Amino acid sequence: MQEYLQRAKAACAELSQTSGRLRNDTLLEMAKALRSEHGAILEANAKDMEYARGAGLSSAMLDRLLLDEKRINAMAESIETIASLRDPLGRTIEGWTLPNGLNIQKVSIPIGVVGVIYESRPNVTSDTAALCFKSGNVAVLKGGKEAVNSNFAIADILRGVLEQSGLSKDIISMLPDSSREGVMKLVKMDKFVDLIIPRGGESLIRSVCDNATVPVVKHDKGVCNIYLDESADIGSALKILVNAKVQRPGVCNSMETLLVDTAIAKTALPLIKSEFEKHSTKLKGCVQTLAVIGVEAASEEDFYVEYADNILNIKVVNGVEAATAHIAKYGSGHSDAIITENYKNAEFFLNAVDSACVYVNASTRFTDGGEFGFGAEVGISTNKLHSRGPMGVNDLTTYKYKILGNGQIRE
Amino acid sequence: MQEYLQRAKAACAELSQTSGRLRNDTLLEMAKALRSEHGAILEANAKDMEYARGAGLSSAMLDRLLLDEKRINAMAESIETIASLRDPLGRTIEGWTLPNGLNIQKVSIPIGVVGVIYESRPNVTSDTAALCFKSGNVAVLKGGKEAVNSNFAIADILRGVLEQSGLSKDIISMLPDSSREGVMKLVKMDKFVDLIIPRGGESLIRSVCDNATVPVVKHDKGVCNIYLDESADIGSALKILVNAKVQRPGVCNSMETLLVDTAIAKTALPLIKSEFEKHSTKLKGCVQTLAVIGVEAASEEDFYVEYADNILNIKVVNGVEAATAHIAKYGSGHSDAIITENYKNAEFFLNAVDSACVYVNASTRFTDGGEFGFGAEVGISTNKLHSRGPMGVNDLTTYKYKILGNGQIRE
Repeated sequence: MQEYLQRAKAACAELSQTSGRLRNDTLLEMAKALRSEHGAILEANAKDMEYARGAGLSSAMLDRLLLDEKRINAMAESIETIASLRDPLGRTIEGWTLPNGLNIQKVSIPIGVVGVIYESRPNVTSDTAALCFKSGNVAVLKGGKEAVNSNFAIADILRGVLEQSGLSKDIISMLPDSSREGVMKLVKMDKFVDLIIPRGGESLIRSVCDNATVPVVKHDKGVCNIYLDESADIGSALKILVNAKVQRPGVCNSMETLLVDTAIAKTALPLIKSEFEKHSTKLKGCVQTLAVIGVEAASEEDFYVEYADNILNIKVVNGVEAATAHIAKYGSGHSDAIITENYKNAEFFLNAVDSACVYVNASTRFTDGGEFGFGAEVGISTNKLHSRGPMGVNDLTTYKYKILGNGQIRE
Repeated sequence: MQEYLQRAKAACAELSQTSGRLRNDTLLEMAKALRSEHGAILEANAKDMEYARGAGLSSAMLDRLLLDEKRINAMAESIETIASLRDPLGRTIEGWTLPNGLNIQKVSIPIGVVGVIYESRPNVTSDTAALCFKSGNVAVLKGGKEAVNSNFAIADILRGVLEQSGLSKDIISMLPDSSREGVMKLVKMDKFVDLIIPRGGESLIRSVCDNATVPVVKHDKGVCNIYLDESADIGSALKILVNAKVQRPGVCNSMETLLVDTAIAKTALPLIKSEFEKHSTKLKGCVQTLAVIGVEAASEEDFYVEYADNILNIKVVNGVEAATAHIAKYGSGHSDAIITENYKNAEFFLNAVDSACVYVNASTRFTDGGEFGFGAEVGISTNKLHSRGPMGVNDLTTYKYKILGNGQIRE
């Protein structure tokens, strides 16, 4: 492992000297190669599918794993989009000149070697590799065990393009030892790895955070809350609530808990119930909710849960302060919203809620790199430091100070 | 420890709702209180000094520990400077509006609970507490064992002012268990602590990094290098070199190694030797250096050392690429400089050297929050992520996205 990571680290210096044009041209070649060599990917994917069927994976899991020509084309298109983004490197983030004439420029640079650990679909391999490459980072990838053949086939094609472009193949690679032990070794290699991004289950993220000496930006669960304030426009509110829960219940930015102001509980709850019944949402309510509408009882534990399903908790709270206190206790710092026409309450909520994304009068479903206009995303960080919320290519950079003088010495 | 940190965490919510004016007024009261209650600090400091003399600390160490009325006044002045800085909170770092009208604002906010571990002078206690408070963070401080009475006396005065201002005393505190075990417990409390900043010896920093589950921004050693290019203006160069080594050899931004281009070794080295002899600098040279001037031989290990003393390594290298290769291997990513009149070499050096601060034609001694114009500094980060180089109050913040809508739902 150490020798492998030494090669990855060594590739950083070469990559940091490439031009944005060379990186973009290489990305376009990668997209082409994925299309022209799709046969090799489909063959590898067939092996994964066969193994997965034998292991009895659910049909939803099998669908996530499956690749076809259309999906490979979508992977190629995604790389083309990444190629078209503005270069995240060499941006002057700040710049100023000191009284002595020294000019200081805070300039964006690559992070170095970025390790990404993920579980899901094979297209994450090409997306992540492309995002890292665009931002001048060496990618060390570790995908799900069930997709191992597909992932290696995709990486092989991208590595082949690197070689043809006169670059080192070590710029993109799959971690050779993809066991749990391999991952735990990787996260301690702070001499060679600059950042670990774990995307996946809670237990994976916990064990990475507990064991890592490399800095970690985690992509943890989303327990998103929406607070319906007394002053809300109820017609607009119902549309937002349904969208936040029903449009795609399985994703991290969907709503898990609706908080309803006591002052409007009696009038709003029946409307909410009838609206969600149209979408077959299973509702669970607190004691005060049950006093108004007939739904299943929610336990205290339920308010911590990311259902990733068409299930919604409802809790009656006494005003905006109680709502933010609930969010501080049960939320996951991902995305939370207030629906209100009251300026003061909106302002209080925006300041008091300490989440990556805090909304007024909009669906939490907008927490997404694509929706934010980042073009593509590495994922959604639930870290408080370095990167928060949707991570685009700019979030895969750090900075250095370039300081231009003409003989200045310190007095 | 857990109960203590729970109180610290709880104080975050209160602090995040304070206005910049309240924080500044409270800082000015803190400065006043340090001056008016200097008697209590001097009494506590006398105890520390007595203990330190008994323990046989060096006179340099004793001088660092000693407080007098003048030094306490300087601490108060430093707090007044921090109060006068622009509010680091509520800055809109970026902002844009999506085609659907959703307005996204990336806004600076406090990090939360910040643990700072330091070894040196008691004034670090008041400086760090003030910087954390200015930026809306709860400070958990752990100073050197030898300064324990002084540190607690200073913190008590600051905490008294917090209480008088109607704020929680838990906003500033000294870690009650200041043993090594206490520190190792602290760095694992990721539920309550958001950032750990260790400033101090290599072994402390290594054990914090190895054990922490809390994110760490380390303030590690500075092995700073200056490369003297063939095209350098030698008169200006000698002034920069002497300044970088001699002006204050004990600090992290002073030069440890001078790299001299082969092309000018024969002419430049004698000038360098005679210049440094005027300042009694002890020179150590590589084999090629020894062929030109008579100085002590440098071992390979010497190039990794932060002397913190008036000692300088000299190495002859074959051009700018060899210089950057040396820096990549032996440097600590702190501050490195090139002295050159060649545009291409300057540009290559600026891009290739991956250090927090990379200079052209200036002394590395400028790597300092005060010199950068930050007003005051938490220290100099040698991390690659979150904060790099001199850390001012802006570096004690993170961000969230505030998203303002009027009914937007995702299609």
